[in-house]
Amino acid sequence: MQSPICTMLDIEFPLLAFSHCRDVVVAVSKAGGMGVFGAAALPPERLEEELAWIDDHIGGRPYGVDLIVPNSFAGKGEEKDALPPIPDAHKAFVADLLEKHGVEGDSLGGVSSSLGDNMSDAGAAALLEVAFRHPIKLIANALGVPPPLMLELGKRHNVPVAALVGTRDHALTQVRAGVDILVVAGGEAGGHCGEVATMVLVPEVAAAVAAVGADTPILAAGGIVTGRQMAAAMAMGAHGAWTGSVWLTTAEAETNPVVKDKMLAASSRDTVRSKSRTGKPSRQLRSPWTDAWEAEDAPKPLPMPLQSLVSEPALRKVDKLSEGGHEGAKALATYWVGQGVGLMNEAMGAGQVVQEFKQDWIAACERLNGFIGD
Amino acid sequence: MQSPICTMLDIEFPLLAFSHCRDVVVAVSKAGGMGVFGAAALPPERLEEELAWIDDHIGGRPYGVDLIVPNSFAGKGEEKDALPPIPDAHKAFVADLLEKHGVEGDSLGGVSSSLGDNMSDAGAAALLEVAFRHPIKLIANALGVPPPLMLELGKRHNVPVAALVGTRDHALTQVRAGVDILVVAGGEAGGHCGEVATMVLVPEVAAAVAAVGADTPILAAGGIVTGRQMAAAMAMGAHGAWTGSVWLTTAEAETNPVVKDKMLAASSRDTVRSKSRTGKPSRQLRSPWTDAWEAEDAPKPLPMPLQSLVSEPALRKVDKLSEGGHEGAKALATYWVGQGVGLMNEAMGAGQVVQEFKQDWIAACERLNGFIGD
Repeated sequence: MQSPICTMLDIEFPLLAFSHCRDVVVAVSKAGGMGVFGAAALPPERLEEELAWIDDHIGGRPYGVDLIVPNSFAGKGEEKDALPPIPDAHKAFVADLLEKHGVEGDSLGGVSSSLGDNMSDAGAAALLEVAFRHPIKLIANALGVPPPLMLELGKRHNVPVAALVGTRDHALTQVRAGVDILVVAGGEAGGHCGEVATMVLVPEVAAAVAAVGADTPILAAGGIVTGRQMAAAMAMGAHGAWTGSVWLTTAEAETNPVVKDKMLAASSRDTVRSKSRTGKPSRQLRSPWTDAWEAEDAPKPLPMPLQSLVSEPALRKVDKLSEGGHEGAKALATYWVGQGVGLMNEAMGAGQVVQEFKQDWIAACERLNGFIGD
Repeated sequence: MQSPICTMLDIEFPLLAFSHCRDVVVAVSKAGGMGVFGAAALPPERLEEELAWIDDHIGGRPYGVDLIVPNSFAGKGEEKDALPPIPDAHKAFVADLLEKHGVEGDSLGGVSSSLGDNMSDAGAAALLEVAFRHPIKLIANALGVPPPLMLELGKRHNVPVAALVGTRDHALTQVRAGVDILVVAGGEAGGHCGEVATMVLVPEVAAAVAAVGADTPILAAGGIVTGRQMAAAMAMGAHGAWTGSVWLTTAEAETNPVVKDKMLAASSRDTVRSKSRTGKPSRQLRSPWTDAWEAEDAPKPLPMPLQSLVSEPALRKVDKLSEGGHEGAKALATYWVGQGVGLMNEAMGAGQVVQEFKQDWIAACERLNGFIGD
């Protein structure tokens, strides 16, 4: 396909697949798109293992790595010990919510995620060092302007740096900072997202980038789970698509099977944009867990990364129990997903998803041409 | 253009323009699209005058009429006298908000809108009777399933009936009820809107309609203010576009000039979806008025149509004063508009907007074709 994204990343079809699952990354890259491995919550030694596995299996096809390195967050640059303590109200709320659904035990014990560490300068540097030891073809930052180190390493290794944006102004800030690819994510996206819809944000950012004389290519994100949506975004000024949700229900994905089933059954109305998981607004599958946090009597979510220390251990326990058939846990189980979940109705392999995207893209283009009279 | 919408409505370009301004309706229809006159707040005798004027000026081109006839609302079918009284808390809140901005006087006096009356069965019947005395080519209902009378009259006069929907399930309900055209409106739309974004809702509804074996054509709505977005929606399964916001800043529109200027300057982030204007969620330009209603200490908006009896007289006073240069009123002034306001940066004539839509549609189609390699 004739897109600057294809040229820049040496891929056939400008479809990028964000996934925490190495098998999805490999399958997508092999099918002509590009897998981007989500490494935000891994310690450096685990990232090393995962990327080594990818190198062994991807047959030389290009792939990328995605991190979350915000410019500011509670405790940035400090030791984890220095983070403020979790308020008792939050602990009690979670304990009560779990207990109501028959989930017992200390929900805050055993925080094993490295997300908090990785968001510190030292933690981010360690992950970047690992990533750049591998033949990555893209490095992405999922929150805010990439730190100078990421931009420097990208330049030095000739690896394009991508950054997610949810507003026109943030896009222009990223362009000025020297980002190579803009991932323009509408409010219908799963995970962290803004409020402006993809249908508006993509042409708005495309016009703003052009108006400052830049030619930074745009990947549209937010709600895109089919080739027709990808084509639509490209008709409006994007040069490709960045996707996440659609891979969660693929055969390769390690998504909790209970959540996978919920996603396949969900309509586009079954998501909620809430601060309750990370402290910043992120879109996720609705469940009694998210409903409880949205209720008026719920404690206010803590700032990033503290809220993750409240939610992740509890939700990990919920996942584990739900996979064992625990009814209360099955009800509570949730995960990040975009409104596109309403169009995700069939489980299939990740490579097949890429093929369907291609066919659907072409069909959408033909459909559009068909409106033009002879 | 080869679209079932063009065939059904006898128009050249499947762009529908909802407007309360008869000049916009005439200009759009004359330019090859179709103007749809928003009559929800008019008494029957005023509607008669407006449609007679349109008939005299539109040169035989097709046009439509849009009403708001919900299936259920507070006081439906009853006399206005029977509506519950406005709570003191709401009166005091509005009086206080206006006073803070230097706007004085009884804000609830002189309710002249006929919206409440028109929403009753008898009121709706009177409007429908007027509408069908004129050579309308479309009748649209902006909220819920059209009442049986509207569907009957449409059939009898061979006038297609359109209905706005914001969810897949509502779309299927409308198809079963016998609606001829679905206006599928994403959450980025101005005025009453759901939560699912256009990028997801359009393909979701298109798939659902096809899955039940129906061929009801779809007009995409929500955020669409350019031809590239219209093309995008049509690539995803729509057969044309339904627009509203983009006409508010045209030369013909009777929009408060203060609000017009605000809209031309606004970014896509300057809207809010709030119940504070009508009692149901509707998207509008943010201002200190909407901010106050969104604050935690604000009274809960009343159910439709009561909240309009609180907001409309106050906002009408604000409009009047703001046009006279009153600073407090200029700050408060607001109106319904979608997130597409971020792309509305230049005032022009309504006919010119239609021409730009056509050119931009073609450019988007060419752009999409350009991605396909030789």
